[in-house]
Amino acid sequence: MTTATRGPIDSAAHLARLRKRAPLIHNITNLVAMNPMANVLLALGASPAMVHAREEAAEFAALADALTINIGTLSPHWLDAMEEAAEAAQLAGRPWVLDPVAVGATRYRREAGQRLLECRPTVIRGNASEILALERQGSGGRGVDSSDPIEAAEEAAISLARRTAAVVAVTGEIDLVTDGRRLARISGGHPLMPRVTTLGCALTGVVAAFLVDAEDPFAATTAALACYGEAGRRAGTTATGPGSFAVAFLDALYALDHDQLVTLPTLEVSDAP
Amino acid sequence: MTTATRGPIDSAAHLARLRKRAPLIHNITNLVAMNPMANVLLALGASPAMVHAREEAAEFAALADALTINIGTLSPHWLDAMEEAAEAAQLAGRPWVLDPVAVGATRYRREAGQRLLECRPTVIRGNASEILALERQGSGGRGVDSSDPIEAAEEAAISLARRTAAVVAVTGEIDLVTDGRRLARISGGHPLMPRVTTLGCALTGVVAAFLVDAEDPFAATTAALACYGEAGRRAGTTATGPGSFAVAFLDALYALDHDQLVTLPTLEVSDAP
Amino acid sequence: MTTATRGPIDSAAHLARLRKRAPLIHNITNLVAMNPMANVLLALGASPAMVHAREEAAEFAALADALTINIGTLSPHWLDAMEEAAEAAQLAGRPWVLDPVAVGATRYRREAGQRLLECRPTVIRGNASEILALERQGSGGRGVDSSDPIEAAEEAAISLARRTAAVVAVTGEIDLVTDGRRLARISGGHPLMPRVTTLGCALTGVVAAFLVDAEDPFAATTAALACYGEAGRRAGTTATGPGSFAVAFLDALYALDHDQLVTLPTLEVSDAP
Repeated sequence: MTTATRGPIDSAAHLARLRKRAPLIHNITNLVAMNPMANVLLALGASPAMVHAREEAAEFAALADALTINIGTLSPHWLDAMEEAAEAAQLAGRPWVLDPVAVGATRYRREAGQRLLECRPTVIRGNASEILALERQGSGGRGVDSSDPIEAAEEAAISLARRTAAVVAVTGEIDLVTDGRRLARISGGHPLMPRVTTLGCALTGVVAAFLVDAEDPFAATTAALACYGEAGRRAGTTATGPGSFAVAFLDALYALDHDQLVTLPTLEVSDAP
Repeated sequence: MTTATRGPIDSAAHLARLRKRAPLIHNITNLVAMNPMANVLLALGASPAMVHAREEAAEFAALADALTINIGTLSPHWLDAMEEAAEAAQLAGRPWVLDPVAVGATRYRREAGQRLLECRPTVIRGNASEILALERQGSGGRGVDSSDPIEAAEEAAISLARRTAAVVAVTGEIDLVTDGRRLARISGGHPLMPRVTTLGCALTGVVAAFLVDAEDPFAATTAALACYGEAGRRAGTTATGPGSFAVAFLDALYALDHDQLVTLPTLEVSDAP
Repeated sequence: MTTATRGPIDSAAHLARLRKRAPLIHNITNLVAMNPMANVLLALGASPAMVHAREEAAEFAALADALTINIGTLSPHWLDAMEEAAEAAQLAGRPWVLDPVAVGATRYRREAGQRLLECRPTVIRGNASEILALERQGSGGRGVDSSDPIEAAEEAAISLARRTAAVVAVTGEIDLVTDGRRLARISGGHPLMPRVTTLGCALTGVVAAFLVDAEDPFAATTAALACYGEAGRRAGTTATGPGSFAVAFLDALYALDHDQLVTLPTLEVSDAP
């Protein structure tokens, strides 16, 4: 049973815990995201490790503090290792985060998404179309009723969270986090963020880092997204394009002062409809 | 039949078409290039996807607007997926670009180069020694007659274009594009470009993005190289080394103003000898 | 037989040799390090190539001037190729450098470390815990006697160097190089360096580049570490976080003026205890 915080979430306290703990995050992620994800985690104060071979993935998952799995550049051996690592993480009581990149694009991805859902992720983080595709498949193709894309994503996220018992985070211009009972919306970030590759994938690692030792995965996920968005907002104040944005973003993550985060005005938590 | 433009090529119009379309570019590329290539395509206004498993490569190639294949870090499963994706792209009427990295270096690469040539690329982009190696192998080892390296590359490019019906782009200090009938030379760029890894590989993605909806692959390829060189020239005005160049280059691609490109003075098109 | 320099090591002369030679460095490295390693080698004046398939790794290793092997993101096919490439490099008289990333973390890595040690690396470069793990395994688990971590790493490095006939470099806040007879300590660098991913892995490539045509691998390794640390120190004077540090570091490597390096005051060589 997790504590169901309903008051404002203290992102600063979550960040302070992460920095003190410097958790080891095991990532089986895509080939494009590996480097930026490692740099994002290091800038934030966590310790990343990329380990994907079946010969060691499960063993390593049990050693690490949290696991992330991202299907961006999938292949059969990797998918097997993902399942084994997810099972090992679960057995060892470690949180793990699923990033279902482009899960609706091909049959192979749809199957991979369903196989990984069965390994019971602690958090699922994706964009609106990924969360919609994942929920639509799992719920037998009925899909959501809403025609408004933001409303549809919210319905899908809540439904997916209730069905899988995972926290679901939908990221985009406005981020959304739900555990099926509560709902948080986080603004922040910057329009240049989608012009830098795999910042979403790297965020999945950040969510995992915030989950370590967290009592409430919903609150930890929300805090992770709030900190990430705040770093993005700050990076955007000096960037002149996606190249300089990526550099300033790492500097901003590194410089995130948790004293300043408590004033973050964009965090709202409410009951899920 | 493509339209054989012989007048000056309007790079600005090609760039404007790309930005309006925001094409989805499917890349099976090398492990070093994946991240820079994705960032270059995003900065320019295209949408990159890296998908390499045989389980989905062909299916995805038919969904995307164009495909690129790069043999930089080759392995057997990847090569199989490359062939299947190239065939699917061709069947779906999508353009695809071959980047024959270091094709002359090992027997494995020489064989891979020939296998992929048989999949009929729309464009082949390489440096002079790669184009020379590819043409020498395919033409039964006769090779070119010229002893001057630039002249030799030009002869090889024209011969390769005529034999394969592909547009051939040879990039270096001065770039060269030919379809066997026409020839364009593009200057621009900056001496720091070869000191940043995989900028050539990323250019292959840019060529693919310019090919989408283009009537004339020769003109589209030439426009792609002109825009890329112009971004390089601009980045070089502020860079103090390869690190700052890479950052400034992404910002310059993002900021490329097509109104300014029409004044680009270095674009010449002539008949191939 | 290598020349056993005991006087001060002239880093500037080693760097000048490297820049004149522009050696081709073949790297079978981890998926996170590939891009930064290539950029570091290009900035320094070497020519990187990443080639990992069994179909060509040995053939390519014999063509290149030096080889590096890094087990960071290991898998079975890669490990086979690593062994074959290392054997080919040795047969061709080329130096090769082993980077035993996290070698103590899993059984698979421990076995890989021992298999690669049998291929007789010219240099082994790792952090203190990796060198300790490698020596502890190889020496039958006896381990080192010291309880002080720095002293323990020094003992392990000397012991590993004597047992394997390799030069051993232990990098950290203060770097240490030994061939079992001589010992050098190099300070320099910057506290932000460990916050940028795979700068240690990239250093392995730099060591390989310095080894090419070097008479004394111990001196060449020491010079490599001194130059790298000096570039780090310079980058740290302008960086405001890990993002800007990574950019400034590449610029600093590119700008390293060997005339300034001769004044480097932090290089000490002594007899190994």
